[in-house]
Amino acid sequence: MTQTTPAKARSPRIRLGMVGGGQGAFIGAVHRIAARLDDQYDLVAGCFSSSPEKSAASAAELGVPRAYDDFAQMALREARRRDGIEAVAIVTPNHMHAPVARQFLKRGIHVICDKPLTATLTEAKQLARAAGESDALFVLTHNYTGYPMIRQARAMIAAGDLGEIRLVQVEYAQDWLAEPLEASGNKQASWRTDPAKSGLGGAIGDIGTHAFNLAGFVTGLELDALAADLQSFVPGRQVDDNAHVMLRYQGGARGMLWCSQVASGCENALRLRVYGTKAGIEWSQEDPNYLWVTPLGQPRYRLSRGGAGTGPDAARVTRVPAGHPEGYLEGFANIYAEAARAILARREGAAPDPAITYPGLKEGLEGVAFVDACVRSSRRNGAWVKLAL
Amino acid sequence: MTQTTPAKARSPRIRLGMVGGGQGAFIGAVHRIAARLDDQYDLVAGCFSSSPEKSAASAAELGVPRAYDDFAQMALREARRRDGIEAVAIVTPNHMHAPVARQFLKRGIHVICDKPLTATLTEAKQLARAAGESDALFVLTHNYTGYPMIRQARAMIAAGDLGEIRLVQVEYAQDWLAEPLEASGNKQASWRTDPAKSGLGGAIGDIGTHAFNLAGFVTGLELDALAADLQSFVPGRQVDDNAHVMLRYQGGARGMLWCSQVASGCENALRLRVYGTKAGIEWSQEDPNYLWVTPLGQPRYRLSRGGAGTGPDAARVTRVPAGHPEGYLEGFANIYAEAARAILARREGAAPDPAITYPGLKEGLEGVAFVDACVRSSRRNGAWVKLAL
Amino acid sequence: MTQTTPAKARSPRIRLGMVGGGQGAFIGAVHRIAARLDDQYDLVAGCFSSSPEKSAASAAELGVPRAYDDFAQMALREARRRDGIEAVAIVTPNHMHAPVARQFLKRGIHVICDKPLTATLTEAKQLARAAGESDALFVLTHNYTGYPMIRQARAMIAAGDLGEIRLVQVEYAQDWLAEPLEASGNKQASWRTDPAKSGLGGAIGDIGTHAFNLAGFVTGLELDALAADLQSFVPGRQVDDNAHVMLRYQGGARGMLWCSQVASGCENALRLRVYGTKAGIEWSQEDPNYLWVTPLGQPRYRLSRGGAGTGPDAARVTRVPAGHPEGYLEGFANIYAEAARAILARREGAAPDPAITYPGLKEGLEGVAFVDACVRSSRRNGAWVKLAL
Amino acid sequence: MTQTTPAKARSPRIRLGMVGGGQGAFIGAVHRIAARLDDQYDLVAGCFSSSPEKSAASAAELGVPRAYDDFAQMALREARRRDGIEAVAIVTPNHMHAPVARQFLKRGIHVICDKPLTATLTEAKQLARAAGESDALFVLTHNYTGYPMIRQARAMIAAGDLGEIRLVQVEYAQDWLAEPLEASGNKQASWRTDPAKSGLGGAIGDIGTHAFNLAGFVTGLELDALAADLQSFVPGRQVDDNAHVMLRYQGGARGMLWCSQVASGCENALRLRVYGTKAGIEWSQEDPNYLWVTPLGQPRYRLSRGGAGTGPDAARVTRVPAGHPEGYLEGFANIYAEAARAILARREGAAPDPAITYPGLKEGLEGVAFVDACVRSSRRNGAWVKLAL
Repeated sequence: MTQTTPAKARSPRIRLGMVGGGQGAFIGAVHRIAARLDDQYDLVAGCFSSSPEKSAASAAELGVPRAYDDFAQMALREARRRDGIEAVAIVTPNHMHAPVARQFLKRGIHVICDKPLTATLTEAKQLARAAGESDALFVLTHNYTGYPMIRQARAMIAAGDLGEIRLVQVEYAQDWLAEPLEASGNKQASWRTDPAKSGLGGAIGDIGTHAFNLAGFVTGLELDALAADLQSFVPGRQVDDNAHVMLRYQGGARGMLWCSQVASGCENALRLRVYGTKAGIEWSQEDPNYLWVTPLGQPRYRLSRGGAGTGPDAARVTRVPAGHPEGYLEGFANIYAEAARAILARREGAAPDPAITYPGLKEGLEGVAFVDACVRSSRRNGAWVKLAL
Repeated sequence: MTQTTPAKARSPRIRLGMVGGGQGAFIGAVHRIAARLDDQYDLVAGCFSSSPEKSAASAAELGVPRAYDDFAQMALREARRRDGIEAVAIVTPNHMHAPVARQFLKRGIHVICDKPLTATLTEAKQLARAAGESDALFVLTHNYTGYPMIRQARAMIAAGDLGEIRLVQVEYAQDWLAEPLEASGNKQASWRTDPAKSGLGGAIGDIGTHAFNLAGFVTGLELDALAADLQSFVPGRQVDDNAHVMLRYQGGARGMLWCSQVASGCENALRLRVYGTKAGIEWSQEDPNYLWVTPLGQPRYRLSRGGAGTGPDAARVTRVPAGHPEGYLEGFANIYAEAARAILARREGAAPDPAITYPGLKEGLEGVAFVDACVRSSRRNGAWVKLAL
Repeated sequence: MTQTTPAKARSPRIRLGMVGGGQGAFIGAVHRIAARLDDQYDLVAGCFSSSPEKSAASAAELGVPRAYDDFAQMALREARRRDGIEAVAIVTPNHMHAPVARQFLKRGIHVICDKPLTATLTEAKQLARAAGESDALFVLTHNYTGYPMIRQARAMIAAGDLGEIRLVQVEYAQDWLAEPLEASGNKQASWRTDPAKSGLGGAIGDIGTHAFNLAGFVTGLELDALAADLQSFVPGRQVDDNAHVMLRYQGGARGMLWCSQVASGCENALRLRVYGTKAGIEWSQEDPNYLWVTPLGQPRYRLSRGGAGTGPDAARVTRVPAGHPEGYLEGFANIYAEAARAILARREGAAPDPAITYPGLKEGLEGVAFVDACVRSSRRNGAWVKLAL
Repeated sequence: MTQTTPAKARSPRIRLGMVGGGQGAFIGAVHRIAARLDDQYDLVAGCFSSSPEKSAASAAELGVPRAYDDFAQMALREARRRDGIEAVAIVTPNHMHAPVARQFLKRGIHVICDKPLTATLTEAKQLARAAGESDALFVLTHNYTGYPMIRQARAMIAAGDLGEIRLVQVEYAQDWLAEPLEASGNKQASWRTDPAKSGLGGAIGDIGTHAFNLAGFVTGLELDALAADLQSFVPGRQVDDNAHVMLRYQGGARGMLWCSQVASGCENALRLRVYGTKAGIEWSQEDPNYLWVTPLGQPRYRLSRGGAGTGPDAARVTRVPAGHPEGYLEGFANIYAEAARAILARREGAAPDPAITYPGLKEGLEGVAFVDACVRSSRRNGAWVKLAL
């Protein structure tokens, strides 16, 4: 009656660790939900803080069996365990991404790292070299690439549905730093406005990288040059809180990128519009289940996630039918699901499904180079510069 | 270094079973994700099918250790195990809700049951008595009550922000049964259009109950009488696929309810509007993160989940900040999270937090009585009838 | 150099009179703008008030050369003038429509009358007979039928693009009578809530007739029966201020109609949705330049006034290109433009263009019969009744 | 009974002439409707074409009594008539604005001129001087400044409701030149892409000037410098069809401007967003009756034209109540209405109402200087440049 040894049992869950993400953190909790949503991971170890007490307290709250206060020790010990973690999620401030990632990569533990890749371009290049020497996978959580309708847009552009791409308009507007929040002791604000922790970019690093990445992910275009005008509107702020960037892509497409953390009344308004010779697409992160398609000379139509007219690239990252909205967490979870497919293939020695799609080191390097280029251009009064890759 | 016995350890996860939800099912998978999202449940047993092979295969795919092919046996055996399930999710067709639930209730196992409560009003009343004789909790997944902005609307109305309620406009439009899908062998369509399995209501039972429940949940109004006009547009269909209902609430408010499964081009368009003497609210399930408030004589404004102007009732079922959309699965998971809070309090012998809110037997009875009344009214050519509670 | 006698000179403008519409009126000014927009009318006479001083003052303000204080005298004298008016616009309260119209009809002067046709069904039938005995044209300003995208929807349905019509959802929500405005001396509110002037219907007569007319205009369906639940929410009000109506059309389509003047926060929210076996359409008067088309099994698309995919029925009432919004006045003016085409054909003894489309006596009679039926049904507790035509 | 000499008669209509706007033209018809809407003008003379036959034929069709084929003759003769025109509307291609306007200005005839002011900056400055020497008024139809909600936004910013302005995002996207329409003989496309007629700017002159003007009108900000990247995507096109511009305003605000005539699927998508330290505003020309206000730390709300929360600046250019949409023609007509108020004051020798607001020479000069600066900057690879005023 009770069946305990089925024939086609599922693979055991991936043993996951986490560095960062202790009490008070935002993105750590998001990563944990994302890892849990599709039941492919077990979070079994964590270095949630460099304080032993805090790390242990977080582990206890989360029901995580193994807590560490030193990420290098964690990498070492977990690598030695028979049941040690197979992958680690890095959710620290930016300046810690590289040192943490390198410890796990060199022990063959897959890395799922929050964006941007690193705080500086030098670190990014060093990390890329380290990753190249490791067998482990490297996944960067540019989570907005996980949205099904973004996958749909990418597939349509790759298929030529928009014709030749002419224009990219991408923007990411928030308002949570419209006032000097860092002066009030807010942790999220403090490290993000501290160049030693966030890197030289403020808004351009924190959210501009998402916008730049998303435009490239959807269009497949490579940047030729950019001209940037960065501002720090809030007095005393050490990094930009608003950025205006003009873009020239290889092949002739042009674009504009705006990101802001001082746009009063904007929440998390990431929006992408792309126009080609045949059609355009329009998408907003705050309304992510829909993709507008705007053909030249025909009525505009709305593709609905899970609905008529959407293709396999969207379907493979879709859980529920059209009209049942998916959101931010589902999109984030799609990065974890894609990573799980790659990790399980690696575990089984199988070739990964070529459809698996996630951002990695290339995108991470480009993102940090983008921030670097924006800062350089702005310091040169908006001169056109190229990515220093 | 490794901390394995922390002071304030979290409660162990609730051991959950499932009846129904095997391969090919839709709502079973939704319940599993909902149970997993907040990490409060472990799915450890299932009767996914009455076929041993199918049940076992589903268990294997899902990584569920104990599979059954007989729900009564499952209830019996699990109740005897020291590590047996504490709660069961029932995700079968409607006519099986009552017999399954009664087996678990009588063994003291909490029940989380899909809606509508039962296929018939007689069954519903029997189940209500059975539940009354059990110590176990009974949770009905009218999942749309889990949306944060629905909680916000409810709180505002309870606080008098809308004044005296005059009008309720609620509608739920789909199109997936616009053609005779049941004739093509589609399982979801077949049982839903078979009165022996779904009950006498078609659309009115499947989705009309959601609409009716949502209106009551948000306004707190009790129905006085209704007049219904049910239709079966698709030739040969045995149950209604469209329903028009006029509502009179106790205290003088009036309303209209429309539900349809033949509204071409509609996906899952549940929409609620309530107008009082001071203000109105408008909400759409397909855009669930926003609640419009429409005060008399002032500009209308938009409350954003997690944003300014929202209160504690919404906040307690919110996971991510404003601008990071939550969706259907998160709303569904909120029912599971509320149930978990109640179950854990019960486990620990504590009084439950009075803020815990989930639909239960009362709402289930009202829903089945609503379907019964609509069918009675329609058969009497739209005469006003009362709920036969 | 100066060319004063061109070959193909335009027809002289239609000489127009007006009854009602003096100082403080709303709809009179709308009619005047509508008549002016396309340069087809000259307003040359008016009985703006039964007070000689007030009528003269209005005429002076408006630059209208001939002012009257007695509409029967006006009809008589204008009919005798060689340059007398060819058409009259009637913009009085409802109870005056019939007596005024009959005076002008019997003198062969075309009538452009505001809706509803009359205050009572008896008057409506008498007026219909009077009109039948006159050579003059009778135009009823159900102005919402003048919107280009309404014409587009009508043409699509007539062409079978929606398949067989199953469902009509029409609503018209306002809030301007949410409080007892008539008690404050507001003229618009006073006559509209006085059965002696407005007829037995309140909201159902003032705006419900628009909603009912629009649904019939677009779908071409004829009503079989209706069941109505009328309310007067504001204490002391003598007429309904909210109405819920279930509709059964000949041929099997069903519908719901909601109209309200107490829906807090609603401005002029006339909205029509129609669903057939192949597709649906959705339109909102507050966003009138767009028509959503929702095909079964295909993505929904948006037709834009003047844009791709729209046909000749919309084009002939369109002035400016897509993206340049037209509004309420343009839609209203389209009724005047259609009337002008008919009047000019009559003047020239030519057969009118068969494409000319405007509401007339048939629609007026149906509207008053609709109000009558709603009142009868509601008094019989929502029994199904037929129009008493 | 008939009252023909009232005490407070309205002023006689302003006698208006028109240059340009013959058969096949677009904007001429718009100006005529705009002039007619509020009944303040009589169009009595026109030089609709330099061909006598064509000019006469247009006049005949329009019912305009006096037709000319030479604008200088028209100015001369009309100036000599006792009943000659008081104002002239100039609706020719850009390169003719200056020579035509100068003829009428020097005869003391008020000028209402389409935008941009002229094709070149040199012409613009000469015209400004000529206007300075004339007593006549000069009105430039930057018609989008006539929208009531634009007036509302301007008033709110002037009152400090947004705090200190930080950011301006303005865009104007069309697609009608996405293909080489000028090669097909389309008149509108031909002159707009011919530098001899349109000036050096293509899209930046035709619609970029509207966007730039609107931003300045609403914010009151003066430009410090700009950096532009102009493109001609369509092969063979002699002027830009897309422009990206970064803006620096005096006082520290920054902005971006995008205009395009090749954005596939965009109709007339002029959109303005302004963010200050306290709040933002968002407005779209294609949905012009609403203005979003986005306060920092409070829910965003929607102001509705004619509705609660709007002030006198919007009210004075509003004709119908909230919920009755006004559109492009009404906005355009507001420029004519403002001009009429100024002209009538001048006719009567009265001081004009200080609330009268319309764009004139200053705005025209700035617009042409803006185009000139964009072209200069783009030729210098996006260097920051100032307006050459």
